[in-house]
Amino acid sequence: MRIAQVAPLCESVPPKLYGGTERVVAYLTDECVRRGHEVTLFASGDSVTDARLRPACRRALRLEGAKVIDPLAHHIGMIEMVAREAYSFDIVHFHIDYLHFPVTRRQRITAVTTMHGRLDIPDVHPVHREFAEMHLVSVSDAQRRPMPWANWAGTVYHGVPENLYQLRIQPGTYLAFLGRISPEKRVDRAIEIARRTGIPLKIAAKVDVVDEEYFESQIRGLLDDSLIEYLGEIGDEEKSEFLGGACALLFPIDWPEPFGLVMIEALACGTPVIAYRAGSVPEIIEEGRTGYIVETLDQAVSAVRRIDALDRRTCRRVFEERFSAGRMCADYLALYRTICDHEPDLTPRDRALSTAAA
Amino acid sequence: MRIAQVAPLCESVPPKLYGGTERVVAYLTDECVRRGHEVTLFASGDSVTDARLRPACRRALRLEGAKVIDPLAHHIGMIEMVAREAYSFDIVHFHIDYLHFPVTRRQRITAVTTMHGRLDIPDVHPVHREFAEMHLVSVSDAQRRPMPWANWAGTVYHGVPENLYQLRIQPGTYLAFLGRISPEKRVDRAIEIARRTGIPLKIAAKVDVVDEEYFESQIRGLLDDSLIEYLGEIGDEEKSEFLGGACALLFPIDWPEPFGLVMIEALACGTPVIAYRAGSVPEIIEEGRTGYIVETLDQAVSAVRRIDALDRRTCRRVFEERFSAGRMCADYLALYRTICDHEPDLTPRDRALSTAAA
Repeated sequence: MRIAQVAPLCESVPPKLYGGTERVVAYLTDECVRRGHEVTLFASGDSVTDARLRPACRRALRLEGAKVIDPLAHHIGMIEMVAREAYSFDIVHFHIDYLHFPVTRRQRITAVTTMHGRLDIPDVHPVHREFAEMHLVSVSDAQRRPMPWANWAGTVYHGVPENLYQLRIQPGTYLAFLGRISPEKRVDRAIEIARRTGIPLKIAAKVDVVDEEYFESQIRGLLDDSLIEYLGEIGDEEKSEFLGGACALLFPIDWPEPFGLVMIEALACGTPVIAYRAGSVPEIIEEGRTGYIVETLDQAVSAVRRIDALDRRTCRRVFEERFSAGRMCADYLALYRTICDHEPDLTPRDRALSTAAA
Repeated sequence: MRIAQVAPLCESVPPKLYGGTERVVAYLTDECVRRGHEVTLFASGDSVTDARLRPACRRALRLEGAKVIDPLAHHIGMIEMVAREAYSFDIVHFHIDYLHFPVTRRQRITAVTTMHGRLDIPDVHPVHREFAEMHLVSVSDAQRRPMPWANWAGTVYHGVPENLYQLRIQPGTYLAFLGRISPEKRVDRAIEIARRTGIPLKIAAKVDVVDEEYFESQIRGLLDDSLIEYLGEIGDEEKSEFLGGACALLFPIDWPEPFGLVMIEALACGTPVIAYRAGSVPEIIEEGRTGYIVETLDQAVSAVRRIDALDRRTCRRVFEERFSAGRMCADYLALYRTICDHEPDLTPRDRALSTAAA
């Protein structure tokens, strides 16, 4: 198929450090290319891809720092680039929320949009109700709950390339926390679990500007403990070592997590996950097989004590079956075909638009 | 004419306190109605207007505070409302930057867009180059300088209703500073001018969240002076008293001000303006007639000492001639007619779109 992938411009594809959406777009794009499809990636100019890259800005906007005052302007420009070339693709896969809906509606681009963020924000419901005809993909069934009435084409769980993380059979001696330090990620719970069990905790996490005050006032004091090691933000190449070396990943979230990429990255290393029941967690983690799903600190402490009952080879096998980039790509390709098959033939109006856009 | 005005949703129309764009939209809308035109205003639901109000959100988004996470979603929804009704208007006047360009291009809405912000931000140039066919209005000739290649329909200076501010013939005894406290507005210069001349300075200004650190670290210490009185943010009803009671308005800006509404508000009270040469200033202020244009502190101090040479009745008369809401409205109506006259007849493509949108 002739496929366009349209990524956000905040981070490069893949991102240099943290950045879930752009990472998933990178895995999906390269896997589509590997399977022989003709793929065009619309993304920041410093992206690295096996597809044909169409840069919509020179560098990832987040890197430019204070120099980028208006990131929206770059995204509007990118949508226009996509629209101009839309008729050379069988399908356009958008990863930029609702921003392209007005153009997609008017130009009859065969399009599908993966929702990467939380949908329990009332602000976004009216715009989704207005554009109710758009084909949407959820990254977990839980993510859909605030918008069951939308035109969902399917749920496609994220996937990670199989060779990116290695199974480590021998369990490590510490608990791991990986991601962002922010109120909804609840690193404070992870620290309390480490204290109660007496097992060391390593924290590899970034602190966004908006979370700096939270970090300073609520978290920094808790790090001053011989059990706790704070590593800051780490890159992809360090993650396999960091996650594989842990006896468990702690994922003590307190929000409707849409997916939670770090859970499957841990499983890829054979590391089981102890996660609080919220958002996608019950869909990703199989209780007593690849981890434990808990609702209280007591349950989390008990889960850590039973972690050796879980087989690390099973964790890896479940990752390969359910959360590889290959499986993700196959799911998306099936969806693309379904959507293309059900698109009505071009009407005179579409043809008029097509000419106008060419 | 059947006219639509499309305002930003951050503040109501008019805004409760500070907010230049929404204030100008309010004056223009009510004046169009007064002249017998059929006007529809797309704005936040708490707006107060003589036109037919089409609310695009319940309340001004800025008022909702932390509850509004995604203001963009409301604006995208509003554009869709406008597009659905576009064929019942002779012209749609947008005040929301470039956000509607993709829809306007595809649906052939007869549209004109006033640029209210600074255009010297490189981020926005590519999107304007892409949509180079859009009819734009500048609020000063200076504002156009970074984008001389755009499709400028004209410059329309802002205007204020004649009865909103009263001429005060007797000059007051203090200098006035009104607006925002931020690095580009240079209230520090105003304070230094007051100190050097020994004339009291009253400051009526808000501090945005982004400017709080600047205010605390650079400005607060300067306020501790018996010559300086800091009043915080004031409302419309207090402005006539505040501006009219001053011997001069200080406008010591250090950025390419697109217009600077406060200058004409001062003139409406008969109060002359001492302004630094930047942006729109030389177009608004007539040197030696309605104020003095300066480039250094020494020149500003000298200008304060010569302020009595300016006639306050002249200031008011110039306001009435050049900066009334009536004059602004007449200018815009002339532009609307020119644009409508030059719109080509609907093509089959337009008709197809029109049907599709209806």
